[in-house]
Order: sequence, then C-alpha cells, then structure tokens
Amino acid sequence: MVDILHRIAAERTAPAQAYEALTTLDGLAGWWTEQTTGSTRTGGVIAFRFKDDGFDMEVAELVPDERVVWEVVGGPDEWIGTRIRWELEADGDYTVVRFKHEGWREPVEFMHHCSTKWGVFLMSLKRLLEHGKGEPYPHDVHIDNWG
Amino acid sequence: MVDILHRIAAERTAPAQAYEALTTLDGLAGWWTEQTTGSTRTGGVIAFRFKDDGFDMEVAELVPDERVVWEVVGGPDEWIGTRIRWELEADGDYTVVRFKHEGWREPVEFMHHCSTKWGVFLMSLKRLLEHGKGEPYPHDVHIDNWG
Repeated sequence: MVDILHRIAAERTAPAQAYEALTTLDGLAGWWTEQTTGSTRTGGVIAFRFKDDGFDMEVAELVPDERVVWEVVGGPDEWIGTRIRWELEADGDYTVVRFKHEGWREPVEFMHHCSTKWGVFLMSLKRLLEHGKGEPYPHDVHIDNWG
Repeated sequence: MVDILHRIAAERTAPAQAYEALTTLDGLAGWWTEQTTGSTRTGGVIAFRFKDDGFDMEVAELVPDERVVWEVVGGPDEWIGTRIRWELEADGDYTVVRFKHEGWREPVEFMHHCSTKWGVFLMSLKRLLEHGKGEPYPHDVHIDNWG
C-alpha cells in the first residue's frame, strides 16, 4: 500500500474556514470542481465531476475544525477503496492542512499524475482560503497531457 | 520505505530539452534554485542551496534523454541516502517527466511538505520548458509556513 502525502498552510486563516471549504458543497466547488453535488454529512456521498468522469466519496469521519475523512466509493478502479484524509491544525496565523490519499495498491503511473494534480488542487484550496477565489475545474491548472 | 511520486508533461518539448534542464547547472538553476553549483557528470556532486540550507546530490546515473538519478549525500537527515529518480519519455508533442523521490524511512510531516514543494518545483520545470522561464528559488511559490 502506498500513499500520496501533501502539506499546505493558508495564512490569515482559521481552521474553521478550512473545515468549511472541505465540508460544504460551496466550499468544495470553490477549489476542486465546480461540479460538486451530494451530501457532505457523515455517511453521505459527495459526487465530484470533471466533465463526464469523477469520484464519489463517502464521508467517513468529521471532526469539526480538525479532521475530514472520505472513502472513495466510485471512480477509477485504482481509487476505489482508497481514503482521503485531511488534518487541520492552527499554527500561529496559519492553518496547516495535512493531506493523505492512502491505500493505493500499486504506485502506477496514474498515481504519479494524481499526486501532482492533488498538489495543484491543494494550492487552489490555499488560494481560496487566502484570497477568496480558487482554481477549481474547469479552471484548473494543467500539469501534463492527461489533464 | 515510502516514496514521493509526481508526473508532469511539457508541451512542445523534446526529451533532450528536459534532459538538459536536469543535467546542466544553467538548466537546474532555471527551475529549482538559482544557487546551483558543482559537477553534473556521473559521480559528480551538485550543490543546491536555498539561502544557507540545501542538498548535495551525487549523480548516480545518466542515460541521455531518458533517465537521471541522484543520490542525496548532504542535507537534512531525512533526505540522506534517499534517491531522486527522473524518467523522461516523449508522448506526441509532449515530454512526460516521471519523478520519484524514493527511500524515505518514515512518512514524517516534513515529507508531506517536500511532496507538495516538489510538485511546485516540477511545475516550475514545466514552465521553464514551455515558456523559457521557471520559478526557481528565491522566486519560488510558497506552499506553507515552512516555505
């Protein structure tokens, strides 16, 4: 099992703001994909779409202002059963976001792509928190010939 | 042992251009850090500096236009003995760059930071290749409260 790890921090941001960006449809649509629908409560399923494809995430755990865990229940084969874990922590004027996409079976080339693309979307989240506007799909930064 | 993985692709770029950006001091200074000195030949050591800190990489393997491998011989404890592996491949009008920073002993928080920061520097490499100008230190994009 292999994991994708990332860490960003947003300045002049409280953990509650970051938590809101991860647990409301408006927040999620502000940095990941504008095509976000579903239920963001524990046990709910959030549908993230990128044109015709995308991911369905079951909300596995919510600890206000501290932790969000999603389990992937729909999407590419490589993603099914993996988990996305968000940990939030205040550090001075920053909120630190520790990210883990855990449980990949193999370090396939697609995982390399997803790692970089998560990085770009986390920078979009940082921008949303610091400047009020992210770069969600379809306005996302392209990293390679896959998107 | 855990690895950082990334994948970018640069458009209108031949593998030879990407290889040059990874194997010449001018190329490396164009996307990672302007403070790059040393020898880029096999067995040579390249010193990458960020103000006072940095990394020393021994060039372990060079396959023109295909592969570059560095072994970390100086820098933070967590980096010593890890390897940075670059694989280049043409795909239509793109050159795909597969990146692996392999051999971390533990998935410490610093590894989360380095993963995102590598992603940002790889986007700097992409920009250098596509537009002739990257964002090397000290002009690099900040990702968190560590840099």
